[in-house]
Amino acid sequence: MPRPAEPPAGFVLFANRGPFSSHIGPFWRKPAVEGVLHGFFVEAHHCNNMGTLHGGMIAAFLDGALAHAAHRLVPAPAVTVRMCVDYLGAGALGDWIEGRAKALARDDDHILVRGQALRGADVLMAAQALFKLV
Amino acid sequence: MPRPAEPPAGFVLFANRGPFSSHIGPFWRKPAVEGVLHGFFVEAHHCNNMGTLHGGMIAAFLDGALAHAAHRLVPAPAVTVRMCVDYLGAGALGDWIEGRAKALARDDDHILVRGQALRGADVLMAAQALFKLV
Amino acid sequence: MPRPAEPPAGFVLFANRGPFSSHIGPFWRKPAVEGVLHGFFVEAHHCNNMGTLHGGMIAAFLDGALAHAAHRLVPAPAVTVRMCVDYLGAGALGDWIEGRAKALARDDDHILVRGQALRGADVLMAAQALFKLV
Amino acid sequence: MPRPAEPPAGFVLFANRGPFSSHIGPFWRKPAVEGVLHGFFVEAHHCNNMGTLHGGMIAAFLDGALAHAAHRLVPAPAVTVRMCVDYLGAGALGDWIEGRAKALARDDDHILVRGQALRGADVLMAAQALFKLV
Repeated sequence: MPRPAEPPAGFVLFANRGPFSSHIGPFWRKPAVEGVLHGFFVEAHHCNNMGTLHGGMIAAFLDGALAHAAHRLVPAPAVTVRMCVDYLGAGALGDWIEGRAKALARDDDHILVRGQALRGADVLMAAQALFKLV
Repeated sequence: MPRPAEPPAGFVLFANRGPFSSHIGPFWRKPAVEGVLHGFFVEAHHCNNMGTLHGGMIAAFLDGALAHAAHRLVPAPAVTVRMCVDYLGAGALGDWIEGRAKALARDDDHILVRGQALRGADVLMAAQALFKLV
Repeated sequence: MPRPAEPPAGFVLFANRGPFSSHIGPFWRKPAVEGVLHGFFVEAHHCNNMGTLHGGMIAAFLDGALAHAAHRLVPAPAVTVRMCVDYLGAGALGDWIEGRAKALARDDDHILVRGQALRGADVLMAAQALFKLV
Repeated sequence: MPRPAEPPAGFVLFANRGPFSSHIGPFWRKPAVEGVLHGFFVEAHHCNNMGTLHGGMIAAFLDGALAHAAHRLVPAPAVTVRMCVDYLGAGALGDWIEGRAKALARDDDHILVRGQALRGADVLMAAQALFKLV
């Protein structure tokens, strides 16, 4: 299945990321008023044996969006210290998936972030994660 | 850094997995008395911009081990419906990482699984996940 | 420390709840445009041995607000099937604590809800929970 | 329904706990080779409107067992910083519920603990929590 020629209006390729993010990409992003907005097309290498979007892939994608939202609040190096995800729906080959994330709170050295992955209006995954400034 | 020639004794290459697992591998596994035992070497494409093992990669690796443990208890198709991970340590390029997982309980259509990723005796990540039979 | 005479404007006593909620109360609530808004004063029986608000108490309070938000979206009996909480701050005797919760998504038989407990503008706890219609 | 006269052999009343734990008790404990073992009888004030054991009560009970297990590993003051629970079954008035918890790992200032609440051999709840030394 060929990838659609273009992501939705306003999204630009998210280049120059780290090796793992590049390896599981490509990803796009779009400037957002609040938090961050990422996106990707489900390609063959994102799927499981049942031919649907692999849960671990949605989680890894969303982890990147959550980390980006933490960094937007506090522009300093940080690492994920915990993450909890709920899966509510499945994605399929060719789908355009969006990830939205926004920092909710922070203390001296932690940032709490929430986000969700969506296909259109359907929430596929919701995540709550904590990042630690390092 | 070249990959060590061989994983620890008893581990064999975990082949014929789905596209996403193959893409982020390679992984090894070893027969275990209880639950499952997986492993991988941290390669360049598993790292983040800070040169350490990407948190999303450990989570995706461990998700695979947890799913395998669920399948060992109930050999039927299942999907992850939630997963919660705590990070306690970091991995680095060249490290051998092991993932251990074991089903804890089940009801009619769910299997609860716990696991951890280790580098030697150090727990890098602990996870609790729920799988749903589909 | 005597309890302040009155909760903030707009809050009314949340009566006629189940035995456990009544036992760990009293709680107040306030009509909200979105989701639900609960509140309580930290009393002596809500504290731990260190004299601060017990974490289990905040969690139990917030669980009630989350359940209420689920019920507001789908007015049918439901039970908590999972809940994940992050603690970011502590409460003390006499504090007025507010809990805000809002349903994020639903599928055929589950409702995903998020909420937080606050003391003034400080987030003390953030929670993500899943409820199942029964 | 009258409370059974006695808990299972080896359990003794867990007295002199903090105000909140005492308020939602009574609880019993039994010396364990590994980790900790707590128990309680489901009384009327532990139930919800549907007449079953309130989810928030199981979570608060298990939080106490998890904290105790953290303290057994590192006998110093600590607070819960996150907790994630999965519910797999329900309890009813008069049931004897046991909570088992064991520390899995620690770093410089955190202790990771796992536990479960059981009714006989049935797992009602599984929890993973992180405690921070304060």
